[in-house]
Amino acid sequence: MKKMIIDERGKKYIVNNEDFHSDLGIVKKEDIINSKVGDTLITHLDKKFKVMKPNVNDYIDLMKRNCSILVLKDIGTVISHTGIGEGSKVLDSGTGAGAIALHFSNVVGKSGEVISYEIREDFAKIAKENIDNFFNGNNNVTIKNQDIKEGFDEKDLDLIFLDLPKPYEIMENCYDSLNLGGWLVIYAPYINTVETSYKIAKKLDFNNVSIIETLQREIEVRTQGTRPKTRMVGHTGYLLFARKL
Amino acid sequence: MKKMIIDERGKKYIVNNEDFHSDLGIVKKEDIINSKVGDTLITHLDKKFKVMKPNVNDYIDLMKRNCSILVLKDIGTVISHTGIGEGSKVLDSGTGAGAIALHFSNVVGKSGEVISYEIREDFAKIAKENIDNFFNGNNNVTIKNQDIKEGFDEKDLDLIFLDLPKPYEIMENCYDSLNLGGWLVIYAPYINTVETSYKIAKKLDFNNVSIIETLQREIEVRTQGTRPKTRMVGHTGYLLFARKL
Amino acid sequence: MKKMIIDERGKKYIVNNEDFHSDLGIVKKEDIINSKVGDTLITHLDKKFKVMKPNVNDYIDLMKRNCSILVLKDIGTVISHTGIGEGSKVLDSGTGAGAIALHFSNVVGKSGEVISYEIREDFAKIAKENIDNFFNGNNNVTIKNQDIKEGFDEKDLDLIFLDLPKPYEIMENCYDSLNLGGWLVIYAPYINTVETSYKIAKKLDFNNVSIIETLQREIEVRTQGTRPKTRMVGHTGYLLFARKL
Amino acid sequence: MKKMIIDERGKKYIVNNEDFHSDLGIVKKEDIINSKVGDTLITHLDKKFKVMKPNVNDYIDLMKRNCSILVLKDIGTVISHTGIGEGSKVLDSGTGAGAIALHFSNVVGKSGEVISYEIREDFAKIAKENIDNFFNGNNNVTIKNQDIKEGFDEKDLDLIFLDLPKPYEIMENCYDSLNLGGWLVIYAPYINTVETSYKIAKKLDFNNVSIIETLQREIEVRTQGTRPKTRMVGHTGYLLFARKL
Repeated sequence: MKKMIIDERGKKYIVNNEDFHSDLGIVKKEDIINSKVGDTLITHLDKKFKVMKPNVNDYIDLMKRNCSILVLKDIGTVISHTGIGEGSKVLDSGTGAGAIALHFSNVVGKSGEVISYEIREDFAKIAKENIDNFFNGNNNVTIKNQDIKEGFDEKDLDLIFLDLPKPYEIMENCYDSLNLGGWLVIYAPYINTVETSYKIAKKLDFNNVSIIETLQREIEVRTQGTRPKTRMVGHTGYLLFARKL
Repeated sequence: MKKMIIDERGKKYIVNNEDFHSDLGIVKKEDIINSKVGDTLITHLDKKFKVMKPNVNDYIDLMKRNCSILVLKDIGTVISHTGIGEGSKVLDSGTGAGAIALHFSNVVGKSGEVISYEIREDFAKIAKENIDNFFNGNNNVTIKNQDIKEGFDEKDLDLIFLDLPKPYEIMENCYDSLNLGGWLVIYAPYINTVETSYKIAKKLDFNNVSIIETLQREIEVRTQGTRPKTRMVGHTGYLLFARKL
Repeated sequence: MKKMIIDERGKKYIVNNEDFHSDLGIVKKEDIINSKVGDTLITHLDKKFKVMKPNVNDYIDLMKRNCSILVLKDIGTVISHTGIGEGSKVLDSGTGAGAIALHFSNVVGKSGEVISYEIREDFAKIAKENIDNFFNGNNNVTIKNQDIKEGFDEKDLDLIFLDLPKPYEIMENCYDSLNLGGWLVIYAPYINTVETSYKIAKKLDFNNVSIIETLQREIEVRTQGTRPKTRMVGHTGYLLFARKL
Repeated sequence: MKKMIIDERGKKYIVNNEDFHSDLGIVKKEDIINSKVGDTLITHLDKKFKVMKPNVNDYIDLMKRNCSILVLKDIGTVISHTGIGEGSKVLDSGTGAGAIALHFSNVVGKSGEVISYEIREDFAKIAKENIDNFFNGNNNVTIKNQDIKEGFDEKDLDLIFLDLPKPYEIMENCYDSLNLGGWLVIYAPYINTVETSYKIAKKLDFNNVSIIETLQREIEVRTQGTRPKTRMVGHTGYLLFARKL
């Protein structure tokens, strides 16, 4: 696991086992290697950095991103509803920048496995770098630069998560590839996509088929009083859940 | 990890390494021990059970519960927003029936740790049984039958999750016990509780303090058309997030 | 305008200019005729009734209803968004029990006009009785027991409100019948209905076309604290608005 | 009632019985006086304007506004829940730019009455102009440039609508001034205000006390599919309803 340091302005940096350069000065390689979470590192300009335990969201905030990222409310709903955790085997597509794969990887751990299909070569390359960087080479995620619609041969999956156009075209293949008890989850911004997917899920003998939409509101506490924020996100996407039983 | 079997009516049972008795007949111990996920087991009355890979939600559905349980939408939000995962160290209180501890345990894995405080002896006992049963004795959860308000000495925590009355009474202790980068999360049904907690979090130098409310709607697909369900859950509780930075 | 009386249990009754009989005793015709709002009437059993100014919602609560009724949140949205008021000319279909016609009638007043089409004879009959009873025969509402899909010849309408299957079949006729500045509003529980109507509205040169969904939450104030209610109505219907400009 | 004309770009203008000047040319006084809704007027530059029936929202869009205006979803909820309509007597405070008074006036009509209290002289002046302009001098609205907290002597009110700081300071006076069956409605952005008002309403023997929050989502129909809009208004204010019974 990499280290993260944070300066007094709250700016965060992932550090490697080498000298760290910034506008606040240089932190020496040895100081970084010998530090532990909570320590303070001093640059040659006498500026302070604190050593932090970064989490998956810190990494995602700092990594290279060339496309939009599934929001936390939807990722959380997928994890809690499907019950994936230590040791689970998960397939996702498309990879995008790798954020969802990182979240899945984070909860399935080293005894688990994440396989992620991405049709675009440029996306797959960046996602691979992001994930290798996260894991320091101790990796439970495999990025495949392939069109999942041409088929996939993974079996015994606990979760298949699809965020791609016309996901219903491969739902039969998904059914076959899931463990008994495994979940297919489809994320789609348009209701028409999940409507079609719902009908196909019913035909394919999936069970516990449901479509869920999650809304989150933030509450403001001011001196005048407490109230929900004036603006909120009205919609990201629908989540279709279907279980093989 | 225990096995789960499911009959043709969709009814699920956790099975141990012993003969299984039900109204559909008996499955022999050896058959259970030799089975793997996806296999079909036959009772002496010729009824079929399928062997499933149970997940944390299956266990929670089947375990003994004497109190209400945090809903999946809120558990998912806690996991995704705090970024806990493999190896995280989590403290929660009150334990209740142990459902939230099971969810945390499921995502932090064996290299992680969950400590759960419960003031009521009867709740702590049942939660302990539920969790031992889930893990078959290979346990990363410790239930403590203690009043967390009298103090706790765990350190270097990545997440403290509080679902108890007047959580703001121990927020200073929580701040001291968190890792740099660690999160305090408070769940409360009443806005007054999170309002008070918000003000104290600000005084205690917590960062990224926010209050979030999550709403989930289910969409129905019928032959006549598609629509959100007529009834929905309007409120469970607010989640206050505060990070030590 | 009729009078309403309310007993000490909060039960409300519409009264006519005749003796009033209830389980709490009899109020004499003369007492009713001579009373004004706020007065107390005494039965021969010495029970008290207060004389109230009933509003349109009181009438609707007490009238004969054989079908479901558009909820207040949707009626309010129609009135405020279309800006109908004194003197407006409104057409609605189907009438149902007449609740929406009563609401429209209430805000357009005697200088306005409401025409309401109902295909079912039994519904039209009850709605007519309900409305005659409300107005004591001084009526700005006309109920027509006709299928609006076979055509209607009202012109210069400020609002056409449709709550019926396949409303998009008569949208062209609606366009022709509206005043410049008039609104067509379609209420439908299924998203597919408003989706189709939206596309047709765009083709027909309607302006300001939008689809709105209204959610209402109720807040509870208890001694322990304040919170939204646990259960809420998740959906009634969508409202499509389209203006002729 | 004034006339409104609309040009081919969709821009709207209120016109008086005099020559109309714009960047598209001049429309003569006589043409305006002789026109009726739906007619086309031609400027001396040969540009076209159509004559429209303006509604209350058109007026409010075009009138002078120096402060924020209650949104339509909340106005609609007040009208439909309280059942005000032809002939109702309504008091509101503060007036602001007069938008809410115009909406009330629009539904209570000439047989009804609206009294509106505004503490600020500049606001009261503009509101008076706005309302006089709307009615052409045939007015059912009275603007009073007074602090309502110093008392008010209107009686037999069907609705009192308060949108001002600490509205609970005058709730007792409100109770006394309402008709039996009349409603007090309080609008407030902060939950603390309606919480306090709720408790006082209960002490004052108000009935049917409830707090409602209204959320509106807009649905987009695109060629790719149909979905709620990405952004929405998360909060405007709470509405407390309390009835004198």
